[in-house]
Amino acid sequence: MIRLGILGYGNLGRGVEAAVKHNPDTELVAVFTRRDPATVKINSNAKIYSSKDLAAHKDDIDVLIICGGSATDLPKQTPEAVKYFNVIDSFDTHANIPQHFANVDEAAKAAGHIGFISVGWDPGMFSLARLYSNVILTEGADYTFWGRGVSQGHSDAIRRIEGVKDARQYTVPVPAALEAVRSGKNPELTTREKHTRECYVVAKEGADLKKIENEIKTMPNYFADYDTTVTFITEEEMKKNHAGLPHGGQVIRTGKTGMNNENTHTIEYSLKLDSNPEFTASVLVAFARAAYRMNKDGQTGCKTVFDVPPALLSAETPEYLRAHLL
Amino acid sequence: MIRLGILGYGNLGRGVEAAVKHNPDTELVAVFTRRDPATVKINSNAKIYSSKDLAAHKDDIDVLIICGGSATDLPKQTPEAVKYFNVIDSFDTHANIPQHFANVDEAAKAAGHIGFISVGWDPGMFSLARLYSNVILTEGADYTFWGRGVSQGHSDAIRRIEGVKDARQYTVPVPAALEAVRSGKNPELTTREKHTRECYVVAKEGADLKKIENEIKTMPNYFADYDTTVTFITEEEMKKNHAGLPHGGQVIRTGKTGMNNENTHTIEYSLKLDSNPEFTASVLVAFARAAYRMNKDGQTGCKTVFDVPPALLSAETPEYLRAHLL
Repeated sequence: MIRLGILGYGNLGRGVEAAVKHNPDTELVAVFTRRDPATVKINSNAKIYSSKDLAAHKDDIDVLIICGGSATDLPKQTPEAVKYFNVIDSFDTHANIPQHFANVDEAAKAAGHIGFISVGWDPGMFSLARLYSNVILTEGADYTFWGRGVSQGHSDAIRRIEGVKDARQYTVPVPAALEAVRSGKNPELTTREKHTRECYVVAKEGADLKKIENEIKTMPNYFADYDTTVTFITEEEMKKNHAGLPHGGQVIRTGKTGMNNENTHTIEYSLKLDSNPEFTASVLVAFARAAYRMNKDGQTGCKTVFDVPPALLSAETPEYLRAHLL
Repeated sequence: MIRLGILGYGNLGRGVEAAVKHNPDTELVAVFTRRDPATVKINSNAKIYSSKDLAAHKDDIDVLIICGGSATDLPKQTPEAVKYFNVIDSFDTHANIPQHFANVDEAAKAAGHIGFISVGWDPGMFSLARLYSNVILTEGADYTFWGRGVSQGHSDAIRRIEGVKDARQYTVPVPAALEAVRSGKNPELTTREKHTRECYVVAKEGADLKKIENEIKTMPNYFADYDTTVTFITEEEMKKNHAGLPHGGQVIRTGKTGMNNENTHTIEYSLKLDSNPEFTASVLVAFARAAYRMNKDGQTGCKTVFDVPPALLSAETPEYLRAHLL
């Protein structure tokens, strides 16, 4: 049994707890929280501890799955926790990956542990799709589409606007762009041509709806570069129709082969997810298994999805995998 | 530079020759053929040798890419050639993979080389798609669809029928089956429900067309279990409309997550290929790079796509990959 711990019990932490149920060679032994442990209720029999007490449990856990946010939590939590355990996170600020890698690598090597970073679906499975398709079609173009799905960051940005009570933002790929890419035409696409943004907003009583809509549509970085629609709904409609956290998307690479580039190929990896956090958590648990095995094998330092022989992700034996999945 | 050799100069061998052009860290140094080398013309400056002379060139080649057939060539060629070189093949008789693995593993370990088997798209990239999706969605169902594309084995089977001059067989997924799978309904599908087979046949003068059509449609294993259409065409139409070797297909896994299996997810990996042999060859060259690196690192024995950290497939550095593809 691989003994897992969770640091941070939000949507992602609950997803990990559920994923453990689907992976019988793993068990969840501890949940660490920044809240008062006495106030936290969980869905399993794991022990609940304060996040200040990581060090005291260093011999009880094989891999700690860190479920914090990328903006401020993970840059501190991952290099700190890897002193005590093998760890894994889903750090997703693409531009800061090299710095995060360096920090975790140094701490992990000093402690003799493995620190996996940026594991999930993007970065994660989408990164693998990009890498595998790039090494096959060395001359070509990459396209990543996201959605239809809820962007938590964009939903939060709307909630910070004056007069907004609640909001949900869906990122939606533009069908014509997807079609042009799949046809192998190698189109050059602007931000606006690739995705639209649909916003569902519950306004506070008496709020200026025109002003809210305008503030959303002109918000730099988040919405200004997109065709954005804003729909005001009631609290009941929000609860009934927008409670889930679906997501998904496509990684597509088109490229040429042949002595004179005469043949075109399209590789597409596509996800359709009912629950973004539960899917991400399921990826994390598979890579936690690999982290445990790689560290047992003597490996240390920071690792990403690019460093893992796929067979290490599976609970099945290499013989079984060759006979049934190859 | 990684020095590559080719054993067998047919469609796949020519594909490898073209793929080397797209991978500037590799060079093609030799082509080995069972024909008289003086009669073989190739598209590059590689040397042409008799396939009997493999041993004499054991120090000139880092990885030999074996481009023979799975039925009778590869079971002999791969264990023999791995005595002299790191080798890689695209062995695709799924049922015999465990035996082929054992034979290659023994010979490769004795010689201190790496022997990659079953590299291409199925087995190969489709196997990876199956493995990655199985470790994430541990409870679910796998579906593999092939086509629309030319099946060489089925085309050959038609050519062996009396009165047939030439033939091309396309395997075609049934759209309704694909749709049902993508919707997450987990349908149970028979062979007939998944694929249809389209046959284009040039008959010899005076041949009994009704008899040919009947022989095709009732051929056990190949056609009897499918809805098959047979269209007779002229030699000119065959040349004009069916000269290429396109192929492709989908690996789809649907599965459940959550404490009570309440959420459904769909993972799909899809290929659309203008040239089956050129795409397969491009996969082979990427894994040849990994074979070279793994052997330099001290590894020996038989390997499959499941054993390769993806970063080893790329000519780029780990730092570049993390910064640009993660």
